Amino acid sequence: MEIKEVQSLKSEGLFSMVAELGHEQVVHCYDEATGLKALIAIHNTALGPSLGGTRMWNYASEQEALTDVLRLSRGMTFKAAISGLNLGGGKAVLIGDAKTMKTEAYLRRFGKFIQSLSGKYITAEDVNMNTADMEYISMETKYVTGLPESMGGGGDPSPVTAYGVYMGIKATAKKVFGTDDLGGKKIGVQGVGQVGSYLVERLVKENAKVTITDISEEKMKAIAKRFGVDTIDQDKIYDLDMDIYSPCALGASLNDDTIPRLKCALVAGGANNQLKEELKHGNMLLDRGIVYAPDFLINAGGVISVGNEFYGNYNRERVYRHTEKIYDTCLSILNLAEKEKITSQEAAIKMAEKRIEEVGKVRIPR
Amino acid sequence: MEIKEVQSLKSEGLFSMVAELGHEQVVHCYDEATGLKALIAIHNTALGPSLGGTRMWNYASEQEALTDVLRLSRGMTFKAAISGLNLGGGKAVLIGDAKTMKTEAYLRRFGKFIQSLSGKYITAEDVNMNTADMEYISMETKYVTGLPESMGGGGDPSPVTAYGVYMGIKATAKKVFGTDDLGGKKIGVQGVGQVGSYLVERLVKENAKVTITDISEEKMKAIAKRFGVDTIDQDKIYDLDMDIYSPCALGASLNDDTIPRLKCALVAGGANNQLKEELKHGNMLLDRGIVYAPDFLINAGGVISVGNEFYGNYNRERVYRHTEKIYDTCLSILNLAEKEKITSQEAAIKMAEKRIEEVGKVRIPR
Repeated sequence: MEIKEVQSLKSEGLFSMVAELGHEQVVHCYDEATGLKALIAIHNTALGPSLGGTRMWNYASEQEALTDVLRLSRGMTFKAAISGLNLGGGKAVLIGDAKTMKTEAYLRRFGKFIQSLSGKYITAEDVNMNTADMEYISMETKYVTGLPESMGGGGDPSPVTAYGVYMGIKATAKKVFGTDDLGGKKIGVQGVGQVGSYLVERLVKENAKVTITDISEEKMKAIAKRFGVDTIDQDKIYDLDMDIYSPCALGASLNDDTIPRLKCALVAGGANNQLKEELKHGNMLLDRGIVYAPDFLINAGGVISVGNEFYGNYNRERVYRHTEKIYDTCLSILNLAEKEKITSQEAAIKMAEKRIEEVGKVRIPR
Repeated sequence: MEIKEVQSLKSEGLFSMVAELGHEQVVHCYDEATGLKALIAIHNTALGPSLGGTRMWNYASEQEALTDVLRLSRGMTFKAAISGLNLGGGKAVLIGDAKTMKTEAYLRRFGKFIQSLSGKYITAEDVNMNTADMEYISMETKYVTGLPESMGGGGDPSPVTAYGVYMGIKATAKKVFGTDDLGGKKIGVQGVGQVGSYLVERLVKENAKVTITDISEEKMKAIAKRFGVDTIDQDKIYDLDMDIYSPCALGASLNDDTIPRLKCALVAGGANNQLKEELKHGNMLLDRGIVYAPDFLINAGGVISVGNEFYGNYNRERVYRHTEKIYDTCLSILNLAEKEKITSQEAAIKMAEKRIEEVGKVRIPR
């Protein structure tokens, strides 16, 4: 998400960091009794209240946590904007050990802090947070979304995310091959967790020739058996003879080492932050003539789902219709990138910023 | 206010600072369009929402602004608690040049940020903020107090502050001289601004022998003429033959240089942070047998006034009755200090903390 190099942020004081990245508000929340140390970053609320998950992590330093929350909340702004959601970007991080610190009191105290921000920040599940945690948080605040169906929420957003990735693959295929029919196309899917496996199911139904890999050999074999697809060693996926590479696992899989090895015509997957360095590796793909579907656009099905849930009256059909628009948006972005001779990632950020600026002008930030 | 030495705070990250001082929440607010850089510190809300003024200052660094807002908000917690207010401690600082930056857009944006904290922080006027500024802020938030009567507020709180200081002087006189009659007592008043001049008026009415000093010779002469009191050079007030020294100007007037020179039996004034270093100089006074009326208690009339205003239905009589209690509280503190052989400042903080802990336990923080 960072055409600006967030990695270079210095510890010169928080205001110099937010002046660079454009955050509206950063909130430090502390509670001695429970040991709570929470950072909530509200990046931009021009389109609506900021939405983004809560991540718990045993950060080595406060600076590391701060960089993470600033970077991730900024990414959420662009993701929401490009997806046509009336939401802004936010994120929360909890500093500490998720295994030992997450008591009821701790989580409810955190929920109270979220509530006190009067809806400018809406939270959801993220790394090291589970449904039980969200239940405690939601006892203290109504500004939480992505809840399971048993709690009145929309349930697991993974199938929606997978559907959006599928739309992104098809749109990019249309641009590259002139047809979005994936029948017979050789597709390498890296990572068959929740999103990856739902994606494989869709690709197989369309008679694509799918090869999968995963960090867990057991999971890989189970999915391969279930859908009748090939497998490949983790490390060899980059050398695979494929038309489409779909990274659905870790970030930064597009880097100095892997890009020269790729034999595909396009990259389109569900992983976050696929480009190790956005400008550099986006341009490396461009130079090699490989078309890249911006990750934060095509993996936005999840936020579309939880965003719709927050608006109320969760309607699965409406959510899928909204997610389907990723197809058209993706094509527009690829055309814009071609026209302006920029990377697709840059084009996507440009389009997101345009919407924020246009709509932001007429909407007074809260 | 800081028995803990806030001055020693290092820039090891905000959480290590708030862990030491016990703040609940610190909010960085940023707005590129108007240049707004605001820090809002919410120290403690156990007794009620946090209250404290907004100060604008061209801080040399963000760290300096942060130290100021953390220190001042913590002081407000103790001031509100010892005064029996159902309020916690908070403070806001605006980083920048008050002469050039305070546009309507800037102030209203700041007001919106205050509003978005859902009432956990209530603001008021402080250094470099004026009534017109507060009017803009109050267009965007209801969480503002200390407004002029023309805006539905309680008006200038200075006479109330002066009344509280007067109560503090009388209580301390009672402790030291066995009578609170100030007739014939030699009193040196340092600083005859708003609070100081209202105080002089009360002291003169009671036939005290008042000598005043001020940084402005013009103002000093005008007040001396108006009330028929003596004047003295700024620097010589510490050597004056007096029973009571009443610092009502700058902070830190009780220090290594001045304390050995004092000939008074007691110190009781309206200035903030009179003890340059709380522990050290509190003990120096104790060793010299000079009784000290804790500043943050006896200058609390102002916050009592604006606090009452915030609760609604401002009633001047009720405010004065509330402020009058400073007399009894001051005596209790001086007795506690004597009994426990601690400085009066320590005794005051102890009593404030006791109330927060007792009441805080039964009130769930918002």
